[in-house]
Amino acid sequence: MDTPTDTGFDLPSWDDVKAAHERIGQHIRRTPVLTSKYLNGIAGAELFFKCENFQKAGAFKVRGACNAVFGLSDAVAAKGVATHSSGNHALSLSYAAGRRGITCHVVMPHTAPQAKKDAVIGYGGTITECEPSTASREHVFARVQAETGAEFVHPYNDARVIAGQGTCAKELLEELPDLDVIVAPIGGGGMISGTCVTCGTLAPELQIYAAEPETADDAYQSFRKGEIVAYDAPVTIADGLKVPLKELTWHFVRTGVTEVLLASEREIVDAMRLIWARMKIVIEPSCAVPLATILKNRELFEGKRVGVIITGGNVDLDQLPWLK
Amino acid sequence: MDTPTDTGFDLPSWDDVKAAHERIGQHIRRTPVLTSKYLNGIAGAELFFKCENFQKAGAFKVRGACNAVFGLSDAVAAKGVATHSSGNHALSLSYAAGRRGITCHVVMPHTAPQAKKDAVIGYGGTITECEPSTASREHVFARVQAETGAEFVHPYNDARVIAGQGTCAKELLEELPDLDVIVAPIGGGGMISGTCVTCGTLAPELQIYAAEPETADDAYQSFRKGEIVAYDAPVTIADGLKVPLKELTWHFVRTGVTEVLLASEREIVDAMRLIWARMKIVIEPSCAVPLATILKNRELFEGKRVGVIITGGNVDLDQLPWLK
Repeated sequence: MDTPTDTGFDLPSWDDVKAAHERIGQHIRRTPVLTSKYLNGIAGAELFFKCENFQKAGAFKVRGACNAVFGLSDAVAAKGVATHSSGNHALSLSYAAGRRGITCHVVMPHTAPQAKKDAVIGYGGTITECEPSTASREHVFARVQAETGAEFVHPYNDARVIAGQGTCAKELLEELPDLDVIVAPIGGGGMISGTCVTCGTLAPELQIYAAEPETADDAYQSFRKGEIVAYDAPVTIADGLKVPLKELTWHFVRTGVTEVLLASEREIVDAMRLIWARMKIVIEPSCAVPLATILKNRELFEGKRVGVIITGGNVDLDQLPWLK
Repeated sequence: MDTPTDTGFDLPSWDDVKAAHERIGQHIRRTPVLTSKYLNGIAGAELFFKCENFQKAGAFKVRGACNAVFGLSDAVAAKGVATHSSGNHALSLSYAAGRRGITCHVVMPHTAPQAKKDAVIGYGGTITECEPSTASREHVFARVQAETGAEFVHPYNDARVIAGQGTCAKELLEELPDLDVIVAPIGGGGMISGTCVTCGTLAPELQIYAAEPETADDAYQSFRKGEIVAYDAPVTIADGLKVPLKELTWHFVRTGVTEVLLASEREIVDAMRLIWARMKIVIEPSCAVPLATILKNRELFEGKRVGVIITGGNVDLDQLPWLK
């Protein structure tokens, strides 16, 4: 993590990804790559789905969280880790901390779904509730950190986290070295950034597409304007993709991504249902955005070998979007 | 298939299972075995889920169908195959026939779900509709067979089909030779019978449990009475398990099964939801019956290594049973 960016941040390197993979190997699953002849047929391409919905804690985020947690010195680890998240990073950091036997403090709005709270507690995390506003979250988080001295692990704007997420593309390329393209969803940009680091060394010619909901198109707008565009509270069914880019991830989007592709809410739900029906796997709405963009931009992918990152499977089975 | 039974039928042998596996290898998937630490915890056992929901055509039945279709002489195959089924056997036989390039005639009640009809047609099968009664089905089927000369492939009471289904336990035991128990759902008994053939040679000490819905407990009653008990139209959410045993499958249930275990409709739905939520896979209600019986009869499985056959994933995503 010693390559300075033009913004002064330390960037994760390929060596960091390799070190991360060794560090987290025994704490994560090497997830399977699934294929579907039917989906290949309608896409006109060969699709290889890297199934992080089968990952520990149900999402790729456990890779970055484990890399951060297991990379801490004993002295730092003794004070635990902390984050603010109501999503998969909260579960993943709780899981990682539990594996190391240290505390994990999660600041969550009291309005977060009970299922998510239960999952954090189930993995051994401690929840401190805040109001559902940025001001309250920052205030409460600062207090928790001051009281505990816990190490802050940001969900994505953290070189340790990005290096961990890069292990996903590393596994994919080890299994399928001749991919032409990788498509992954983009929210804060942690997965896309890790993919850029890995492909930069293992497959420099490979194209990386970031897939984003039309109604939360901050990465798309950032890519167009050449600077970070952030929205306050975008509305999309792909609830993992609402957060904006930050300095580190913007660097990788700006320098490593071929294009940001958009899909409508309807296209996302249709692609999600298609994956459930044809591949028999439970995936979050966020994971369906790549397939939606592939089917919509057939000319970009036709005849190619395309890796698709299925990022997670933590979905509310009582609230399926096609039944609303 | 030259071992005579006491009822005069030819039984499939271990050699038939091995021959089936060679015959169908290129037409089926070698499906993955998944595990869940959470489910192990609540069961108090080590569970290994053989995921036939990822099988071609979405169900294990493609194994038996392919074995039957690819074992036909060219002369017989030229007239095609025929069956009556509104479930996975119809899809599977259509798939197998399509792979061999021969016709497949399926007699289905006109009341069958349009999705099933579409799937049969999608795989290249030809549907002839009948009324939803046994008399009409038999009448229409006899006419189709007379007109076409097609080879009848019964969904389960057929030595070729049973030998094909036996390849599933063969793959499972090749991967995990030291299993103590296998639990599979029982409807007509094709999967259980194939499992008995395979385990009889590869793991004669292994216990085989058949899992059945309480409201369609004909195998349980047959096991108790020592003769086939059949119901006319049992009602259960596990729609693949409504059919009765027949001569061939009754032989294996009678001689190879340790016990038939029952689960209530509520227990089946709860187990189904648990598998979706924790394992992130889409499975049919029928596949959830084994887990439901394992959780209900903890003392039988505690501390053991248990293979669980997940038989298929063809479920109506618009009609999830926990949302009714």
